[in-house]
Amino acid sequence: MLASSRFLRAFKRESVDSTPLWMMRQAGRYLPEYRAVRKTATDFIAMCQNPELAATVTLQPLQRFDLDAAIIFSDILVIPHAMGQPLRFETGRGPILEPVTPGSFSSLKTVEPKEHLGYVLEAIQLVKKDLPASTPLIGFCGSPWTVACYMIEGQTSKTFAQIKRWAFCDPNSLQQLLDKVTNASIAYLKAQVEAGADALQIFDTWGGVLGPKEYQVFSLAYMQKMVQALKQDPLTKDIPVILFSKGVHALTDIANTGCDGVSLDWTHDIAQAKEIIGSKVTLQGNLDPCYLYSSKATITAKVHDILNKVNGSPHIFNLGHGIYPDIPIEGVEAMIEAVRNFSA
Amino acid sequence: MLASSRFLRAFKRESVDSTPLWMMRQAGRYLPEYRAVRKTATDFIAMCQNPELAATVTLQPLQRFDLDAAIIFSDILVIPHAMGQPLRFETGRGPILEPVTPGSFSSLKTVEPKEHLGYVLEAIQLVKKDLPASTPLIGFCGSPWTVACYMIEGQTSKTFAQIKRWAFCDPNSLQQLLDKVTNASIAYLKAQVEAGADALQIFDTWGGVLGPKEYQVFSLAYMQKMVQALKQDPLTKDIPVILFSKGVHALTDIANTGCDGVSLDWTHDIAQAKEIIGSKVTLQGNLDPCYLYSSKATITAKVHDILNKVNGSPHIFNLGHGIYPDIPIEGVEAMIEAVRNFSA
Repeated sequence: MLASSRFLRAFKRESVDSTPLWMMRQAGRYLPEYRAVRKTATDFIAMCQNPELAATVTLQPLQRFDLDAAIIFSDILVIPHAMGQPLRFETGRGPILEPVTPGSFSSLKTVEPKEHLGYVLEAIQLVKKDLPASTPLIGFCGSPWTVACYMIEGQTSKTFAQIKRWAFCDPNSLQQLLDKVTNASIAYLKAQVEAGADALQIFDTWGGVLGPKEYQVFSLAYMQKMVQALKQDPLTKDIPVILFSKGVHALTDIANTGCDGVSLDWTHDIAQAKEIIGSKVTLQGNLDPCYLYSSKATITAKVHDILNKVNGSPHIFNLGHGIYPDIPIEGVEAMIEAVRNFSA
Repeated sequence: MLASSRFLRAFKRESVDSTPLWMMRQAGRYLPEYRAVRKTATDFIAMCQNPELAATVTLQPLQRFDLDAAIIFSDILVIPHAMGQPLRFETGRGPILEPVTPGSFSSLKTVEPKEHLGYVLEAIQLVKKDLPASTPLIGFCGSPWTVACYMIEGQTSKTFAQIKRWAFCDPNSLQQLLDKVTNASIAYLKAQVEAGADALQIFDTWGGVLGPKEYQVFSLAYMQKMVQALKQDPLTKDIPVILFSKGVHALTDIANTGCDGVSLDWTHDIAQAKEIIGSKVTLQGNLDPCYLYSSKATITAKVHDILNKVNGSPHIFNLGHGIYPDIPIEGVEAMIEAVRNFSA
């Protein structure tokens, strides 16, 4: 059943009757049923840590929309949280962490997923019980660079001056921190697969703030390690791995990591991306979520423009970024309808 | 005297004894003498509007460092301010504007530079009196898209959802607003040249938030209009115009506007940029300002890496973004020394 899903067939480069589609952050605040559940939890972290609530909101978008995959509801910051770094979420400000420094990072704990992240694994098991047998579940984590950005900046940043200062002044010690996060992330992704995840995505939200060489050294190298480790383990070797380096144009290098899919934000021309890496990996993306604010006609035209550019190459339709909280449901419906109505 | 300046020679593709250099936001908070002047003004806008203070801080970096150009101290938001949009600066939050909407923008005033922006023109005249005759002065403005981002979002944004919603839902009316800003900006740049500016830079800080096609339609098209208007006017036709579209990789299209220089942020490999557009335009950039936090040895290596990649092609050394307030003076000194000590 699962192997015949459009989503998994796209990675095997098998024909599909319609382009598979899901949305980054599809379990989220734009859904009234999500907001209703969110109200019952004391805060965002409490919701992540409650397997029943996490499973419930993971399933919600699948119950409402015709989507081809679920993604477990969680956050990339569960890794630093599991490493013992204090973390809280403030409404309107996002995550706040007590910044890690070159002097403090050695005290971070080694992550044992079953011990420290059991709540995510349990949520995955709950979702798999209720998800239709033909619908794959995506597990995920952040890239080591991106997770380290939050760990060191303590919050979202405009300049990333703290982590870059560290990277440029003392690259060796930053690389030790990145190695720690890498090892934790590998163990975490494997545990997610063991719990039932059918595919994996690594979110490198902040890879694009680096120069081309610095991206290779501080971000891509660690994602490469992760892909290699996953492909060497019998448990995970056949699990598709998607990389998403937002704002990064080094597509060939990303595809050369051995990943199965490359997710594209909207700054890429997907026709060009197809030419460069389409024969090697499955593309994912790349609609600007802001199009979902517009009319059905505009959304349809833009969706069809993307699908025409892809022109039958292995592709998973998605947004170029997580969906925003104020995006109207009608926009999502128009997008899904446009994908389904498209005939290549 | 002026024509023999390294900076202006670089645009004429003439040989120079050292790569010319200046820094975006070189008159700024990283300088203690700037902070001292800033304290005497009630707020940031008051300082921009005081020609004596603006001239004083414009000259400060030239008095301290061996730089090849001055840039008039001002802000890209003087245009919406001149159009009558209420504007204030809050410490830590940056500029705050009362957002313009599709229903409100028609009431914006037509800008008469001498009437509404006389304080900038006066500051330019004051600077030219005190600047060494061999040092060119750069005038500037924001790109219409970037200025409209602030006008519509009301502040810096993470998603630019307001302006994109407008762009995707009602492109015609947004284009009317962009035309208004374009016309004001052309008049403003011409007036800056009339007052004494020797070169011009257009800052398209937010061009990179658009997809490739949307960038052409909503950002580049208006910069193109500006370049054309400047090149058609006897007053400005020989004045070098530099375009800076941060995070945009459509270098060929930018160079094809007929501009004289293209400024590069640090996400570009300048060797690649040279190959693509180096025979057509003068390159500018592209050091990540965060390198200035690091050691003299690291700064020198990175500066020399950039200069080696450029390898004698017409180039103006600069940062890939405005300098940050907490960057140490020693970092700036190390960068300048590295540029001067480099022999190609």
